[in-house]
Amino acid sequence: MQGYKTDFPLLMQDKTVYIDNAATAQRPKCVIDAEKDFYTCHNANPLRGIYELSVQATENYENARKAVRDFIGAKSVQEIIFTRNTTESINLVAYSYGLSNLKKGDEVVVSIMEHHSDLLPWQMVCRQTGAELKFLECEKDGSLDLNKAEELITDRTKIVAVTQLSNVLGREYPIEKLAEIAHRKNAVMVADGAQSTPHIAVDVKKLGVDFFAFSGHKLYGPMGIGVLYGRRELLEKMPPFLTGGEMIESVSRTSAVYAELPHKFEAGTVNAAGAVGLKSAIDYVKSVGFEEIHKRELEVSAYAFEKMKEIAHINILGSEKAEEHNGILTFTVDNVHPHDVSEILAADGIAVRAGHHCAQPLLEYLGYRSTVRASFAFYNTKEDADRFLDSLSTVRERMGYGK
Amino acid sequence: MQGYKTDFPLLMQDKTVYIDNAATAQRPKCVIDAEKDFYTCHNANPLRGIYELSVQATENYENARKAVRDFIGAKSVQEIIFTRNTTESINLVAYSYGLSNLKKGDEVVVSIMEHHSDLLPWQMVCRQTGAELKFLECEKDGSLDLNKAEELITDRTKIVAVTQLSNVLGREYPIEKLAEIAHRKNAVMVADGAQSTPHIAVDVKKLGVDFFAFSGHKLYGPMGIGVLYGRRELLEKMPPFLTGGEMIESVSRTSAVYAELPHKFEAGTVNAAGAVGLKSAIDYVKSVGFEEIHKRELEVSAYAFEKMKEIAHINILGSEKAEEHNGILTFTVDNVHPHDVSEILAADGIAVRAGHHCAQPLLEYLGYRSTVRASFAFYNTKEDADRFLDSLSTVRERMGYGK
Repeated sequence: MQGYKTDFPLLMQDKTVYIDNAATAQRPKCVIDAEKDFYTCHNANPLRGIYELSVQATENYENARKAVRDFIGAKSVQEIIFTRNTTESINLVAYSYGLSNLKKGDEVVVSIMEHHSDLLPWQMVCRQTGAELKFLECEKDGSLDLNKAEELITDRTKIVAVTQLSNVLGREYPIEKLAEIAHRKNAVMVADGAQSTPHIAVDVKKLGVDFFAFSGHKLYGPMGIGVLYGRRELLEKMPPFLTGGEMIESVSRTSAVYAELPHKFEAGTVNAAGAVGLKSAIDYVKSVGFEEIHKRELEVSAYAFEKMKEIAHINILGSEKAEEHNGILTFTVDNVHPHDVSEILAADGIAVRAGHHCAQPLLEYLGYRSTVRASFAFYNTKEDADRFLDSLSTVRERMGYGK
Repeated sequence: MQGYKTDFPLLMQDKTVYIDNAATAQRPKCVIDAEKDFYTCHNANPLRGIYELSVQATENYENARKAVRDFIGAKSVQEIIFTRNTTESINLVAYSYGLSNLKKGDEVVVSIMEHHSDLLPWQMVCRQTGAELKFLECEKDGSLDLNKAEELITDRTKIVAVTQLSNVLGREYPIEKLAEIAHRKNAVMVADGAQSTPHIAVDVKKLGVDFFAFSGHKLYGPMGIGVLYGRRELLEKMPPFLTGGEMIESVSRTSAVYAELPHKFEAGTVNAAGAVGLKSAIDYVKSVGFEEIHKRELEVSAYAFEKMKEIAHINILGSEKAEEHNGILTFTVDNVHPHDVSEILAADGIAVRAGHHCAQPLLEYLGYRSTVRASFAFYNTKEDADRFLDSLSTVRERMGYGK
């Protein structure tokens, strides 16, 4: 049973059991073709040319922006900024909003579950402005006690930055409620959607977030393209981040008048082909539908989850409930280093990731240095899970422990 | 005679005379295929996985870095940082090197020929540090008097940033000599190679530059990938710019130890497919060879240049010699707005650009608000030039002037 794998050329020609989807997804044929089609039929530098190809390139690029707007429920295309990836999106907010709005005495609240890309930029802002970085800690099962958020987020808080879905625990966090608390204290709410967008239908208006960041490559789109959503009133007041071509109205020797949104934040030649590929990925995800995606992911990952519990010496991080993992199963095997686990799995053709998953503070908080992460996508099958489980169940024996 | 056009799918299926190459080039089939091949056969998130696909992705990505190193004559792969485009490369230098090394009383020297992307970041640095921005002006034909550089670059100068090839005039500038002057005054030399790399063999060691930036998309590579070369001793001392995943050794709640070069400057998931496409573009350019590229470009553009001189009411900016234009012919037509010129050309299927070409200070200095730019690549043919000239010679008549 190949299911949706037939849409993905790599999965059809490669025998690897690819369950490292939280790192990057595979690309469906339509995404690969969309980039190729752009370069073959519409390639020009968008936004400035009058000739037909440049008009087409511009239309393709701006249609991709509309697709993103609709995908995350933004009010306007002016709130959609194309970046390289989630990391750049969050850095943009940190440099542009953070540095100009924070001062000594202010506080930034992040959660202990953040990926480094939603942590290091805030460390930088705090270092440069004298603001203090505060950590919202999770319970041992990875859940969040909103009472702790109510205590931690105060009148001193200016920014609350939390991931919508942990890349280690797979758990979804109540961004809507956190945004409500943040706004009550006049703080802005930043949500990291890198891991959530492939699994959950997002509506930034409903979430009430001020900024929302995600990447194309985790959403079955190309590498090199990402998105920052920002609430228009905020983006309008923010200084540009990167400066250069395309983002200006006029330039004199010593100053510049910047372009309107969203172009103010898109300096230099844009990655139009990447945006077109991302649009194709969004169209693809919509055609499958989040209900189906969720059903498939849960089916396979819940099966793997229950079977893993039956294998001795396996410890799974986070919730006891498979449905709270969104396909992400992070674990350790007693007395076997995670790198050895992943090497044994790799030898059997199973692609998982070992390490700190760019979330060292969380791992340390939970008492680990390193773990193994298997992350399932909707295209993974029960056969994939079986091959993973078969290999996993031999790990301790192959490392010299008894059966 | 299609010549090299047969390597470029868009040029074979589209009848446009594409002479907007200074904005972005077309991509040869091998580049489009290289990206497709990456996604079809080797796609994974590079740098962290132990499994075969991730090892392949890493190898592909790092081989691209080696190709770039060899292409520009850098000493080491640690000096090659992948960015999104030239603009991001220069912003990286401005934010990371500029902000931490400049103070009131210091000076930054740029030339009046800079593209906005090598001007606005320095305006930002000067605004934030109190340093002063100084302009090296060109002669009326676009040439540079090195005596003026000797005068302008003083002990107060900390950074000299000059384009290697003007995107408006097509003229190449003596970066090697400017670097020598800059170093004599203990300033660092930044060269913008966005326009030069498609036309000239570059050797950063020979040029003696400290930083060198260029884009993939102007060099027949994909959009969304660019390069910053930096001298290792400088890069090692510089703070990171964007922060997030992949660029750290270890992270605690309030601080981080950054990774070694070049990863310190590559935050978040890298654009591996873009890098692979850029390598393919470099391989392609090398296979054609700069001698051949130069010969073809000069043949066609010199022909167009001489014929343009015969058309009444045409004024070409810059040198009187075709060989000093590197295929870039920027001009005006008396009493016809450049946008009208480009619209008439577009109606005849000729793709040129009208406007300030992201170089407003240069245009103002030369006494123009707007111009038309035709920029030829080695794949353009005499037939392309003829179609352009035929259309151009009708412009004034079609705007209602006598023959």
